[in-house]
Amino acid sequence: MKKVTIGIIGAGRIGRLHAENLVQVSGVRIKTISDIFVDNIRIWAREIGIENVATDYEEILSDPEIDAVFVCSPTATHVPIIKKAATVGKHIFCEKPVSFSVEETEAALQAVKKAGVKLQVGFNRRFDRNFVKVHETVKNGVIGKPHIVKITSRDPEPPPVDYIKSSGGLFFDMAIHDFDMARYVTGSEVIEVYARGANLIDPAIGEVGDIDTAVTTLTFSNGAIGIVDNSRKAVYGYDQRVEVFGAKGNITVENDRPTSVEISTEAGVFKDKLKHFFLERYKDAYMVETRAFIDSILYDKPPVCIGNDGLQAELIAKAAQQSFESGCPIKISHMLTHEV
Amino acid sequence: MKKVTIGIIGAGRIGRLHAENLVQVSGVRIKTISDIFVDNIRIWAREIGIENVATDYEEILSDPEIDAVFVCSPTATHVPIIKKAATVGKHIFCEKPVSFSVEETEAALQAVKKAGVKLQVGFNRRFDRNFVKVHETVKNGVIGKPHIVKITSRDPEPPPVDYIKSSGGLFFDMAIHDFDMARYVTGSEVIEVYARGANLIDPAIGEVGDIDTAVTTLTFSNGAIGIVDNSRKAVYGYDQRVEVFGAKGNITVENDRPTSVEISTEAGVFKDKLKHFFLERYKDAYMVETRAFIDSILYDKPPVCIGNDGLQAELIAKAAQQSFESGCPIKISHMLTHEV
Amino acid sequence: MKKVTIGIIGAGRIGRLHAENLVQVSGVRIKTISDIFVDNIRIWAREIGIENVATDYEEILSDPEIDAVFVCSPTATHVPIIKKAATVGKHIFCEKPVSFSVEETEAALQAVKKAGVKLQVGFNRRFDRNFVKVHETVKNGVIGKPHIVKITSRDPEPPPVDYIKSSGGLFFDMAIHDFDMARYVTGSEVIEVYARGANLIDPAIGEVGDIDTAVTTLTFSNGAIGIVDNSRKAVYGYDQRVEVFGAKGNITVENDRPTSVEISTEAGVFKDKLKHFFLERYKDAYMVETRAFIDSILYDKPPVCIGNDGLQAELIAKAAQQSFESGCPIKISHMLTHEV
Amino acid sequence: MKKVTIGIIGAGRIGRLHAENLVQVSGVRIKTISDIFVDNIRIWAREIGIENVATDYEEILSDPEIDAVFVCSPTATHVPIIKKAATVGKHIFCEKPVSFSVEETEAALQAVKKAGVKLQVGFNRRFDRNFVKVHETVKNGVIGKPHIVKITSRDPEPPPVDYIKSSGGLFFDMAIHDFDMARYVTGSEVIEVYARGANLIDPAIGEVGDIDTAVTTLTFSNGAIGIVDNSRKAVYGYDQRVEVFGAKGNITVENDRPTSVEISTEAGVFKDKLKHFFLERYKDAYMVETRAFIDSILYDKPPVCIGNDGLQAELIAKAAQQSFESGCPIKISHMLTHEV
Repeated sequence: MKKVTIGIIGAGRIGRLHAENLVQVSGVRIKTISDIFVDNIRIWAREIGIENVATDYEEILSDPEIDAVFVCSPTATHVPIIKKAATVGKHIFCEKPVSFSVEETEAALQAVKKAGVKLQVGFNRRFDRNFVKVHETVKNGVIGKPHIVKITSRDPEPPPVDYIKSSGGLFFDMAIHDFDMARYVTGSEVIEVYARGANLIDPAIGEVGDIDTAVTTLTFSNGAIGIVDNSRKAVYGYDQRVEVFGAKGNITVENDRPTSVEISTEAGVFKDKLKHFFLERYKDAYMVETRAFIDSILYDKPPVCIGNDGLQAELIAKAAQQSFESGCPIKISHMLTHEV
Repeated sequence: MKKVTIGIIGAGRIGRLHAENLVQVSGVRIKTISDIFVDNIRIWAREIGIENVATDYEEILSDPEIDAVFVCSPTATHVPIIKKAATVGKHIFCEKPVSFSVEETEAALQAVKKAGVKLQVGFNRRFDRNFVKVHETVKNGVIGKPHIVKITSRDPEPPPVDYIKSSGGLFFDMAIHDFDMARYVTGSEVIEVYARGANLIDPAIGEVGDIDTAVTTLTFSNGAIGIVDNSRKAVYGYDQRVEVFGAKGNITVENDRPTSVEISTEAGVFKDKLKHFFLERYKDAYMVETRAFIDSILYDKPPVCIGNDGLQAELIAKAAQQSFESGCPIKISHMLTHEV
Repeated sequence: MKKVTIGIIGAGRIGRLHAENLVQVSGVRIKTISDIFVDNIRIWAREIGIENVATDYEEILSDPEIDAVFVCSPTATHVPIIKKAATVGKHIFCEKPVSFSVEETEAALQAVKKAGVKLQVGFNRRFDRNFVKVHETVKNGVIGKPHIVKITSRDPEPPPVDYIKSSGGLFFDMAIHDFDMARYVTGSEVIEVYARGANLIDPAIGEVGDIDTAVTTLTFSNGAIGIVDNSRKAVYGYDQRVEVFGAKGNITVENDRPTSVEISTEAGVFKDKLKHFFLERYKDAYMVETRAFIDSILYDKPPVCIGNDGLQAELIAKAAQQSFESGCPIKISHMLTHEV
Repeated sequence: MKKVTIGIIGAGRIGRLHAENLVQVSGVRIKTISDIFVDNIRIWAREIGIENVATDYEEILSDPEIDAVFVCSPTATHVPIIKKAATVGKHIFCEKPVSFSVEETEAALQAVKKAGVKLQVGFNRRFDRNFVKVHETVKNGVIGKPHIVKITSRDPEPPPVDYIKSSGGLFFDMAIHDFDMARYVTGSEVIEVYARGANLIDPAIGEVGDIDTAVTTLTFSNGAIGIVDNSRKAVYGYDQRVEVFGAKGNITVENDRPTSVEISTEAGVFKDKLKHFFLERYKDAYMVETRAFIDSILYDKPPVCIGNDGLQAELIAKAAQQSFESGCPIKISHMLTHEV
């Protein structure tokens, strides 16, 4: 069987997650994983069967045996790595967001286009069985032309303030997944954005210039209207729901719970809280995502989630940030600097 | 508009419930209500607009203006009242059970048959919108030939032990509704019964010779198998569920709850307990039942729930009692004393 | 028992609904109902027991026996009727909206205040058992300080275009209920409004200058953010959901369905569509609403839904309309013309 | 890290399932898999990393490197293999049922006891996250003393008639899982069994002497009553539900569905059918089961599901078969031949 040889750049939580999924995919060899704190990962890497570890990702990019890289390093490094990787002909899986700058993302996409390599962006929720079914049901016309899209996306608890500082803010770090989901389930582009945000959960988040609660209104090119609501702290678990309402019906996705157990007592009726967070909720989706990328290389198929998907979500996030700051709706057409 | 003039015999909880429903039905005049404790009901009767009160139900039976009687007196009086009412040509609504004796019920039915009056038995659950839909769905063949029927019927709390003493026991007083439901939703007759019972809730119930927990297996003439489970005390409310499984599918009815509110907090997810008891759960069904009886008289239509339905449910209840006592399955054909 | 004598002004669908509920409320006498098409209602009025019918509502306002009026005539007549009724000391139940003009509504409220009569505005959903529980749960602090409020409100089908022409538009005719609900469940005032709307269902609606699809973002004085989504046509029934998310949890209300039956076959799993429209969905709420108004008079209690509730909802509706037309967020403080 | 070396006897569907799970468990080496049709599995075994294949399971039993065996061969071979494996000191995982003969199962358990090896019986459902929660909730007293236990267990389609012939019949092949579940969730022993069965689905099943529909009533030593309903053909998927009702409440487990998507259209409301069959429904449970057995060896812990659990379930299955054939309830105490 043909094999894809992989290098992984960045061994933080998400890099290790991809590594552990990749070892379960047949047709994959992980040759090298790089991280600036390489000593932290030596034992783990050996245990799961990764051949080499490296401090410098250049070791991966310059290795002619490596077919594809997973870019799991901090966002600021994504664009330079993508550009180099494309130049040396490696296929690229890049975690979201591609960058905090529309111009830089555009430049990265042009490098990818020029090199003719594959680029898949890490919007893992596109691979969740529920959202795939929403996407396909809408695409097949079952609910008619979409009129209203509603996405609820709430984390169980805020990340550390140190993380928030360098996260790009709620819209870039968190809502960007939902902006991608809005495009994915409607099959339409966002043309205008209005965002309201607030700092209601932890004043420390406000002190570093970010918000923890947001509602974003999206206007789509096909006339539909979308709503995304976000919170950094849903005490009952990771709240992830999607609804698309159209001319012929409505489709909803409810949350996953750890069990289906329901307990009725004199005190009331109790069900499980939601699955805790993304590692539990999207466990299967991460695996499907990884398999999809490997398959796109092995069988030369187009990736499910391409560079332009990354760019469009960033444009929406940037517009949301500007709308929140200015108090006015922002048109996406004002955000693009040049043709992609 | 043509009017039906009604007399109500017995002004306990169920007699008053029927009276209060009847005053809301157009085409109905309640002329008289009788009760041996007539002083207790004078004010209430006047307030809801009943013309006369009486101590003796003979006053109702001998009143030529009265077209129909509601028999809501203690079970022991049902058969003599039915016989007399039939003889004087009055239509009869009789609360369940018709009697505790198969022979007496048969005699009452023969009197009704001979007189050519209408008799409706008070199996109110047949008029619940949910169970009507189950009945019709099964009848229309949507789930194919029924194979397994499951009925859960649990009260929120046991009645007073004094009531239990004269109730006829769990099978006659409580499960009889479920035995009727089993026939109603399958459209088939029960031919064999096996019952297990226990006194698990309150020893005082056992001391008066009754049980508070029971599981009854029913074998139907069409080959289907039924299960009824009963408890006198479901601390979470009145638990009333029905399921019919067949060759082409399954149909279920879930419980009603006071609201659809769901509250998610750090402590878990909470829903309402079930509706408390039959007055709340079957409020609408009682009204539909009353309207159905009045309509059967006004428009000369057959009642939905006839004398034979009362008899068959009693046969099953009696077989269940015998099975519980003997530890053996009992055939219904052994219970009938003569042809009806 | 003390009685409240009622006059009903307007015998359209909603006037007849209130009349039919009022005849079931003890302590109520409906003396007169007026309608310009009085011949249409003579038979119906007699059948349900209303004493008189009249063409001119002045007959009601000048009748010293009448304690209270139900104003169910077209919106344009509400303010003059309220003013006159207040002047002659009658308590007033007025259907929503009070008027299409903030100035006129303010004037009506001042007349009511001066006369010291009771005024209840017909936001019937405040009396639905589900929404009452949401209101109380939030008020009791169970979910903490509200952060995000989501209201879905979709009709099963658009009204006739002729009705839409004089309806005041989607925000005034339909969303106004949801704007009131937003205030009711959060217990906070709206300070800014942003609305997006579209004409996606029927071009005839657009031709008379209205929209059929809308998403409105509300900013509350307590920092919470609200979202209302509306459609004139949800083919699966009347979609009425409310959700309040707060610091300590989330509370949701799901739709009512005609039955709880679920049918599983080889083709899939089927449940009932939603209750068809407001008459089915809010049947009980209308009755509770009526009882609450009568009780407020009988026992001199403050009404649940007062004049200022009508005014605030109108301010939000007007702001939504202006936001939709201008494309900009609108502050409520810019809408008020003078102090109330 | 300490390793457990495994041999797998039998490479049918269930043997391969265990093999594929075992390769994902750290601390496991699969040295050999045996099957009489060894040629069918050579490629598959190499691909998933099993070192050797063998025709004769004696090769496994005589290999001193092998610590434990998975007995996945036909039921008739289980007892001889268990006896030999125990004699040579190997830990044993045995698929259910241990045998079709209570005497033989007892003999196998005695051999295991004498050898002091671990024996885990393959009741995989005990490892399902939902049923574990029911077991623990009941054990912790949350619902009080159990009164009624209800288990629904319906396959999506009957196995081939050839399989049924040698399956031991519905009670031994299928309901045995539910009899074990009844003991697991109540924590009590069954003392009497009454079973009704029918051949309603496929006459060919009846022709080989088996049934396809059954309802079994279980009486427990603690006074509780249980009901198991089985069907070989639920056209809407694999129907697996458990309910325990007790003095202080009720606990239910609902079915798993492939997605949580709900689609509402003019035609009605649609949800997914149930997960198709046991491979989909109990995918995770099989993995947890395997890990539990390996852990019991690595850390010398008692297995979750021991030999006596296998024996008790067989006793109930045998009693159910006898009850079905005789039409009478059967006491478990009459089934046991000697002390275990």
